[in-house]
Amino acid sequence: MADGPTITTIAERAGVSIASVSRVLNGLPTRQETVRKVMAAADELGYVRNAVARSLKSRRTHQVAFAMADIGNPAYLAMLREIQPVLKAAGYRLVLHSTDAVAADEIDVLHSLGERYVDGLIMSPLRVTEAHLRMLAAARAPVVIIGSVPEGTRVDNVRADSRTGVRLAIDHLYALGRRRIGMVNGPLDTVPGAARGAAYREALEAVGLPYDERMVEIGDFYREEGRRAVAALLRRVPDIDALMCANDLIALGALDVLRAAGKRVPQDVAVVGMDDTDLAAASWPSLTSVSLGSAERGKAAAELLLDRLRNGDREPRLVTVLPRLVVRASTAGEASEGGRSS
Amino acid sequence: MADGPTITTIAERAGVSIASVSRVLNGLPTRQETVRKVMAAADELGYVRNAVARSLKSRRTHQVAFAMADIGNPAYLAMLREIQPVLKAAGYRLVLHSTDAVAADEIDVLHSLGERYVDGLIMSPLRVTEAHLRMLAAARAPVVIIGSVPEGTRVDNVRADSRTGVRLAIDHLYALGRRRIGMVNGPLDTVPGAARGAAYREALEAVGLPYDERMVEIGDFYREEGRRAVAALLRRVPDIDALMCANDLIALGALDVLRAAGKRVPQDVAVVGMDDTDLAAASWPSLTSVSLGSAERGKAAAELLLDRLRNGDREPRLVTVLPRLVVRASTAGEASEGGRSS
Repeated sequence: MADGPTITTIAERAGVSIASVSRVLNGLPTRQETVRKVMAAADELGYVRNAVARSLKSRRTHQVAFAMADIGNPAYLAMLREIQPVLKAAGYRLVLHSTDAVAADEIDVLHSLGERYVDGLIMSPLRVTEAHLRMLAAARAPVVIIGSVPEGTRVDNVRADSRTGVRLAIDHLYALGRRRIGMVNGPLDTVPGAARGAAYREALEAVGLPYDERMVEIGDFYREEGRRAVAALLRRVPDIDALMCANDLIALGALDVLRAAGKRVPQDVAVVGMDDTDLAAASWPSLTSVSLGSAERGKAAAELLLDRLRNGDREPRLVTVLPRLVVRASTAGEASEGGRSS
Repeated sequence: MADGPTITTIAERAGVSIASVSRVLNGLPTRQETVRKVMAAADELGYVRNAVARSLKSRRTHQVAFAMADIGNPAYLAMLREIQPVLKAAGYRLVLHSTDAVAADEIDVLHSLGERYVDGLIMSPLRVTEAHLRMLAAARAPVVIIGSVPEGTRVDNVRADSRTGVRLAIDHLYALGRRRIGMVNGPLDTVPGAARGAAYREALEAVGLPYDERMVEIGDFYREEGRRAVAALLRRVPDIDALMCANDLIALGALDVLRAAGKRVPQDVAVVGMDDTDLAAASWPSLTSVSLGSAERGKAAAELLLDRLRNGDREPRLVTVLPRLVVRASTAGEASEGGRSS
């Protein structure tokens, strides 16, 4: 290698500063035009292209991070299960963060991209704040966001469509002849709570049913809260014939309360959950649930990130994963896979 | 630092090669005796101990890996949920591997410790082979094994005690007056299958019940296989009054079959699962299950590894996590939290 091209000779040939050549060889962020000039000059001078490649390569960590809002939530675990093998197959290790849905923790993860411990990040924040957007704009590595981001945010983005999901469920219940369809929701100041509440109202309108606020009860996204909310709703509207629940845990709580009240599911009250977690198939009667495609969203996010790592210049992309209604015994009783109780 | 001790002077004082000193200072694997000699010589010469520490420290990645056998298995996810926060609190990032229980993949993970991308590893292999043991002995970073390892293996180790777990379940069923207790197991050539099968036989003996191989059916650790196995067992022994299932999925399959056969749970047949996954509480009737302490094992493994990272010289430790029987409606019907069916 002695007497071979050096940083200085490459800089001269490329017509750029020595610092720029050094930045390119070290894989630091540099204007694309500068990178091209330096690579061309290195080629012309017979600077071992492999050495350049190696140099660039040496800045790679072959690691990708996934920052999930809540490591205990089956929806995020379903994403993780798909993300991990896609990255593994492409030769990347997975670094796992759980931010407990704390915005400051998420900002921290974005900030720490500056340490270059990963080549890219998949993040699933519960809510995207102004601070998120500022850090995203300055991020030192590619980021894919799973979840809603404000219009015009320049980032690769994977979204669910809970609005259409609720619509599928209400259409299904309506087609089964249900006309007194209540809703048990989580808090309205969360993104899913607000979206699912609005979607319920829209979906009723679409099938021509009146919206009646007495048919709506707000609790939280847990089974025990679900029980309380369903009990309150049943006291207020005893002849309700269907329940749209904002997630599977609430729906499990609904099954508990209906059973204790001597109501048959689905004959007296049909029940639909949301997220289609493993719990939906384990419950009895098994639970009809709206899948928001957690697994598919995880897979799409991993593939978007890999694509971005190969082609850093392309325009940001939005992938929307369509929901699916998974029909089980809690709405379509007789066909229950587990058979019926005697 | 000029005129201070150098690698050369340390090598002379320690009576070892310069290469050996370099290896020690760079944190590369070196015979323990050589490490001691070099450190002693460095001390004597007033070589800034901090510099040694710094040198070693600079090799730190502040990352720890967790290699789980199966990313879809709730027992491993329960471990993960505990490992992650413990490491995060100590300033470590978590690198996640899923080996799909393939021994070659596990060996690969052990081998890749040589790349020093992590400071330590927690591994939960399904079965520890000779090849595992060879790689463990040569591992370039501390390893904690969750699971059984052969007697005398010098490694930090966290174990469950499924034998005592099965014993707890059989004692419980016996105390409830059950005398015809069948077992539905997974394959006997897996570690859990073999252990749980042997434990069932021992536990029967302990309460004075005869072992009858007609009461045992072997399937696999999945719900559908569980259904098949329970159906076969019921055909052979129609008056069975309790089922010990080798995991929760098998037990869910048992509930399906018993319901379809018009058998009441627990009045006609009591059912016990194993692993106490989230599914146990979601099912109906809710499932009595033996917890093998997945969460506690994860936490113990993370703490053992952190302790080892602080004190690399201590003797290997074995932590055994005791099982717990979580009693729910499938054995203690009347007290069911969800109320009873009308």
